[in-house]
Amino acid sequence: MDEVSRGSEVERDRKRVERLVLFTDAVVAIIITLMVLEVKMPTLPHHASDAQLTQALSDLWPKYLAVFLSFMVVGQFWSMHHRRFAWVPHVTAPVVWLNLLFLLFLATIPFVTAILAEQTGRLSTMLYAADLAIVSLIVLVLWWVLGRDARIKEDPSARHEMQMGAQAAAATALLFLVSIGIATMNPTLARYSWALVFFANVLVRWLHRRKSHTENEVRL
Amino acid sequence: MDEVSRGSEVERDRKRVERLVLFTDAVVAIIITLMVLEVKMPTLPHHASDAQLTQALSDLWPKYLAVFLSFMVVGQFWSMHHRRFAWVPHVTAPVVWLNLLFLLFLATIPFVTAILAEQTGRLSTMLYAADLAIVSLIVLVLWWVLGRDARIKEDPSARHEMQMGAQAAAATALLFLVSIGIATMNPTLARYSWALVFFANVLVRWLHRRKSHTENEVRL
Amino acid sequence: MDEVSRGSEVERDRKRVERLVLFTDAVVAIIITLMVLEVKMPTLPHHASDAQLTQALSDLWPKYLAVFLSFMVVGQFWSMHHRRFAWVPHVTAPVVWLNLLFLLFLATIPFVTAILAEQTGRLSTMLYAADLAIVSLIVLVLWWVLGRDARIKEDPSARHEMQMGAQAAAATALLFLVSIGIATMNPTLARYSWALVFFANVLVRWLHRRKSHTENEVRL
Amino acid sequence: MDEVSRGSEVERDRKRVERLVLFTDAVVAIIITLMVLEVKMPTLPHHASDAQLTQALSDLWPKYLAVFLSFMVVGQFWSMHHRRFAWVPHVTAPVVWLNLLFLLFLATIPFVTAILAEQTGRLSTMLYAADLAIVSLIVLVLWWVLGRDARIKEDPSARHEMQMGAQAAAATALLFLVSIGIATMNPTLARYSWALVFFANVLVRWLHRRKSHTENEVRL
Repeated sequence: MDEVSRGSEVERDRKRVERLVLFTDAVVAIIITLMVLEVKMPTLPHHASDAQLTQALSDLWPKYLAVFLSFMVVGQFWSMHHRRFAWVPHVTAPVVWLNLLFLLFLATIPFVTAILAEQTGRLSTMLYAADLAIVSLIVLVLWWVLGRDARIKEDPSARHEMQMGAQAAAATALLFLVSIGIATMNPTLARYSWALVFFANVLVRWLHRRKSHTENEVRL
Repeated sequence: MDEVSRGSEVERDRKRVERLVLFTDAVVAIIITLMVLEVKMPTLPHHASDAQLTQALSDLWPKYLAVFLSFMVVGQFWSMHHRRFAWVPHVTAPVVWLNLLFLLFLATIPFVTAILAEQTGRLSTMLYAADLAIVSLIVLVLWWVLGRDARIKEDPSARHEMQMGAQAAAATALLFLVSIGIATMNPTLARYSWALVFFANVLVRWLHRRKSHTENEVRL
Repeated sequence: MDEVSRGSEVERDRKRVERLVLFTDAVVAIIITLMVLEVKMPTLPHHASDAQLTQALSDLWPKYLAVFLSFMVVGQFWSMHHRRFAWVPHVTAPVVWLNLLFLLFLATIPFVTAILAEQTGRLSTMLYAADLAIVSLIVLVLWWVLGRDARIKEDPSARHEMQMGAQAAAATALLFLVSIGIATMNPTLARYSWALVFFANVLVRWLHRRKSHTENEVRL
Repeated sequence: MDEVSRGSEVERDRKRVERLVLFTDAVVAIIITLMVLEVKMPTLPHHASDAQLTQALSDLWPKYLAVFLSFMVVGQFWSMHHRRFAWVPHVTAPVVWLNLLFLLFLATIPFVTAILAEQTGRLSTMLYAADLAIVSLIVLVLWWVLGRDARIKEDPSARHEMQMGAQAAAATALLFLVSIGIATMNPTLARYSWALVFFANVLVRWLHRRKSHTENEVRL
C-alpha cells in the first residue's frame, strides 16, 4: 500500500472509532437523562397544601434513590469507556457488535434498578446482580478483544489500559456472580456485598500502578 | 478555483459528511435506547412475592424478544452505514434526503416488530417484511447514488464499497419482497425465510472478496 | 495578539461552532425520532384477526400523515441549517441564543402538526401557520446576524449563502403570515397556499444562481 | 517522555475533552427537547369547535410558561458551559464526575419548574431555589477544580475564564440560598428576588472586563 492510501486509511479508522464513541455517548446520555426525567410528580390538586406536596415528594423517595444508584453505576461504566477508548486506534466488526451488546444491556440497568427499588426480595436482588454481571462480562470480552489487536499490542500503554480494563471487569463480574449465590440464602447480605466491587476496582488499579513502577525500575 | 478556497471547500465537505453521520448516529441511538427503556414492569403490589415477580417478568417475554430482534436488525443497518460512510468524501442534497428517508423508515422498525411480537398472523408478517423491504430499497438507492458520485468513482476501494452495499441491499430487499408473497400462503414459512437474508449478505461479501482477489491477480 | 494565541483562538472558535452544530443535530434527531416512535398501536386482543389489525392501522392514518408532514418540514429546516452552517467560522452569544430559540420553536412543530391532523378548523390552521412563521422569522434573524459578521462579510461565498438564507426565510415567513389572514376567511385555501412556500424557495435559489452568473460574467 | 508519545497524549486529551463536551450536549439536548415535546394536547372530540380548542390551549398556558422558563435557565447553563469548555485542554476523573453530577441535577430542573408552575406555595419556591443553588454550587466546584489545573493556570485567558465562571456561579448560588430564607417568610418576594441573578452575572462580567483593562494598562 502506498503512503497516501495508508494516510487516508488511518483517517477512515479514526473516523470510525470517533463515530462508535459518539454513538455510545448518545446512548448513555439518553439512558441517564430519561432516568432522571421520568421521576414525575403525581397529579396534585391545584394550589395543594405544602403538606400534600411534602407527602408526594417523600413518596417519590425510593425512585430518587434508584435513579441516583443507576446514575452512579452507568456513569462508572461510561467514565471507564471514556478513558479506555481514547487509546483505541481502530475498530473491527466484532468490537462494533460487542459495543452494541454492551449498550443493549447497559440500557436495562434502569429497569432492574427500578425493580430493586420497589421489591427487596430474593429475585429482584438476583436479577440486578445477574444484569450487572452480564454487562461486566461483555466489557471483559470487549477489552480482551481490543487487547489482542495488533496495533494496541504494539503500544505498551494502550495494552496496559486494556489489561487493566479486562481485570477490573473480571473482578466485577465475579463478585456479582458470587452475590447471586449469596442472594439465594440472604438477599440483604448479597446487596451489601456489592460494595466490594468498589474496593476490587481500587485494588486492580493499585496493583497495576505498583507493577508499572516495578517495570520502570527494572528498565532503569 | 485557487488552492486556498479548494482547501476550505474540502474542509466544508468534510464537516457536512461528519454532521450527517453524527445526526444518523443520534437518531439510531434514540431508536435502540428507547426500545430497551420502554420495556417496563407492570405495577406490582409493594413487597410482591417472588412468584408474582416471576410471572410479571415472563409476561414481558415477547417484548424482550421483539426488542432483541429490532436491536439486531437496526444494529445491522447502523453497522453497515458506519462502515460505508467512512468512504464518503462529500454529500449532496439528494444524499441528505435519502439518508433522512432511511432514518424515517428505520424508526418504524420497533413499531412493526412490536406488532409482530404480539400478532403472528398474515398481516403482521407482511407488514414487517414490507417495512424492511422499503428500508433496504432506500439504502440501495443511497449506495447507488453515492456510487455514481464523481469523487467516489475515482477511488476504486470506495466505489467497490458502494457496489457491495448496493448489491447486499438489493438482495435483502428482494428476499423481503418475495417473503410478502410467501406470507399470503404461509406466514410461518415467510418468517423462517428471513434467515436467508443473513446468508445472502454473507454470499455478497464472499463474491466480492473473490472478485477483488482475481482483480489483484490480473494486475500482478 | 501573537501567532500562537491567534491559532488557538481559531481552534476555539472552530470547536464552539462544531459544538453548536452538533447540539442542533441532537435536538433535531430527538424531535424527528420521537415523532415517529410515538405512533403506537392501540392495545389489541392477543391473536387479533387481520381485519382488526387493518382497522387499527387505518385508524392511525391521520397520525402517519402528520408525522410525514412534520418530518419533511423539520427535515427541510435541518437540511438548510446543515448547508449554511458549514460556512460559519465562529459564533457569538446572540447566535447561540438565536439558535436555541430556533430549536425551541422547531420542537413545537410536531405539536401544531398533531393538532392540524385531528382538527381541520380555522384555529388549528392559523396556529400551524403562525408557528412556522415564527420559526422562519427566527431563522431570518439568525442568517441576517451571521451575514453582518465581519469574517463572513470578507468571504463572498459565505456572505452570499447567508443572504440567500435570509431571503428564503423572509419569503417563507411572509407567505405563512399572509396565510393566517386567508385562514380567517377560508382555512382550506390557506392550507393549500402553503404549497407556494416550496416554489418561493426554488425561486430565491434560481434568482441567486442567475445573479452569481451575471457577477461572474462581469468579473470576466 | 519522547516527542511522539507526547503528541499522541495531547491528541488523547483532546479526544476526551471533546467526548465529555459532546456527552454534555447530548444530555442538554434531550432535557430541553423533551420538555417541549411533553407539552401535549388533551384528547379533544374529532372536529372540535375552535372555542374548545382555544380552551384546551389556554389550559396549557402554565405549562408553556414553565417550559420557557426551564428552557432559558438550562440554556443559560449550557451557553456558559459551551463558552468555558472551549478553554479546557484536558479532563481528569474528578472533572468527569463533577460534570456528570452537574448533568444529573440539571436534568431535575424541568421537574422543579413543573411543580412551581402548578403550585406557587412556599415549598415549591424553596425546592426550585434549592435545586438551582445545588446546580450552581456544582458548577462553582467544577470551574474551581479546572482553575487549579496546571495547564489552565499557565494560560492567563483560560485561568481568567475559570475565575469568572466560579465567581458568577458563587453569586448565583448565594442568591438562590438567600431566597430560600426569604421564601420561608414571603414566597412571592423570593421568586421576584431571582431576577437579581441576572444582574449579578452582568456585574461579575463587568468587573472582570474592568480588571483585565487595568491589568493591560499596568503591563504597558
